[in-house]
Amino acid sequence: VEVQAGERMDDLQYRGLRIIQDTGDFCFGLDSVLLADFASARPGDNICDLGTGNGILPLLISGRVMNTRFDALEIDPAMAARAERNVRLNGLENRVSVYNRDLSAIRLLLPSGGHDLVVCNPPYFRHAPRQAGTESAIDLSRTDAACTMDDVSRAAKWLLRNGGKLAVVFPATRMLDAMDAMRAVRIEPKRFRLVSPYAGKAPFICLIEGVMGAKPMLHPLPPLVIHEAGGGYTAELRKIYHMESPALPVTSVNEKG
Amino acid sequence: VEVQAGERMDDLQYRGLRIIQDTGDFCFGLDSVLLADFASARPGDNICDLGTGNGILPLLISGRVMNTRFDALEIDPAMAARAERNVRLNGLENRVSVYNRDLSAIRLLLPSGGHDLVVCNPPYFRHAPRQAGTESAIDLSRTDAACTMDDVSRAAKWLLRNGGKLAVVFPATRMLDAMDAMRAVRIEPKRFRLVSPYAGKAPFICLIEGVMGAKPMLHPLPPLVIHEAGGGYTAELRKIYHMESPALPVTSVNEKG
Repeated sequence: VEVQAGERMDDLQYRGLRIIQDTGDFCFGLDSVLLADFASARPGDNICDLGTGNGILPLLISGRVMNTRFDALEIDPAMAARAERNVRLNGLENRVSVYNRDLSAIRLLLPSGGHDLVVCNPPYFRHAPRQAGTESAIDLSRTDAACTMDDVSRAAKWLLRNGGKLAVVFPATRMLDAMDAMRAVRIEPKRFRLVSPYAGKAPFICLIEGVMGAKPMLHPLPPLVIHEAGGGYTAELRKIYHMESPALPVTSVNEKG
Repeated sequence: VEVQAGERMDDLQYRGLRIIQDTGDFCFGLDSVLLADFASARPGDNICDLGTGNGILPLLISGRVMNTRFDALEIDPAMAARAERNVRLNGLENRVSVYNRDLSAIRLLLPSGGHDLVVCNPPYFRHAPRQAGTESAIDLSRTDAACTMDDVSRAAKWLLRNGGKLAVVFPATRMLDAMDAMRAVRIEPKRFRLVSPYAGKAPFICLIEGVMGAKPMLHPLPPLVIHEAGGGYTAELRKIYHMESPALPVTSVNEKG
């Protein structure tokens, strides 16, 4: 596996994992790191990642939870090929399968009720319809031209066993849309965490996990704070990233916007 | 206005306001104080309080925002009579009208579209149907035997002008039910605040404000923390209650549960 023109390789500084990214394409952000930490993956789980990008979620979750297995979909061919190379780079060929397929192909591609967990870092921004058909890979990863939370929830409903989970990261301003999209397919939101840039500041993203067929009862976790008042990352953020040093080798979450 | 047997009078330590409460009946709690602070009341607003209890919300909001006017409904006769006495006790007869009426009478009682703001500290707990007809006043104020968030939202839809607001306080575990009940009548949740007992602890109640006919876009406020780690109230909580001292002359929010 070699780094190609326009790409860079980063050491994730976590269990020896490395990742190749195209600097001109969408690079993973802090939101993926938070989702990988938040999702209730258990050892042995069969997990599906909808829109895997460079493959960051399977990489991080496979490092965190033993014996997990992944089906990772990615609509963009160059992204999917890079995810595939990242799987080989980290020796995860027997745990991660990458499919260069659209969400709409899910029923032809994977069996019904065969997954314990679906994770998704979906596009954050509503797609402007006039651009249809002219989207670049970076457009597709930032807007919901290729997938909306309704699409994600419907795909998850197909994939999940009863009691299976769907975990997503989403802009806090649209959290109600995300939760309602889950409820519409009987995936009941059960865990919820707001993320603020600083203590005492308004939350900007949220983490939501729903359970297929569960009864309504939402458990909000303590709010997560990214930065200390004086700069640098909070102790909890450093713990999530298994970091000793107060610097993150990831692009900012704002890069997505 | 005199204090009757079984009652006590408290100085609210805010703009000279006082309140009479029956110690054996439902007494207001911290949640009412937080809601009175959170609701977007503006000078001159015509406000309706659904389930006013002892009248605490009209008292606190009339003290905070000049020239506000209130219609306050209360289903329990003894509570409504006490709210009426509290209005007289504080000289607010020309600003607050108390009605000993049920929510279901709203269309006969008050005109459509005549209010700028509806506030409600609704019952937190689902009513167990087997108790129907045998509820005490304290049952009615704690369970949704007499009103659910669906009832509250429908009443608010009748009362509010377009662009008018509905502000409620609710258990964090049921926030999605409350928001969905608002959405079902086109009152879109726009402001949202989670309240934690201590920093870094799970939120237990939330404040939600919806706007009639608004577009989806939820603005989460910074999380509110009640207590300092070492005990006592946080600076923000003391500011909300306009307190100098770190003690609150109100019953605990837990008294409701």
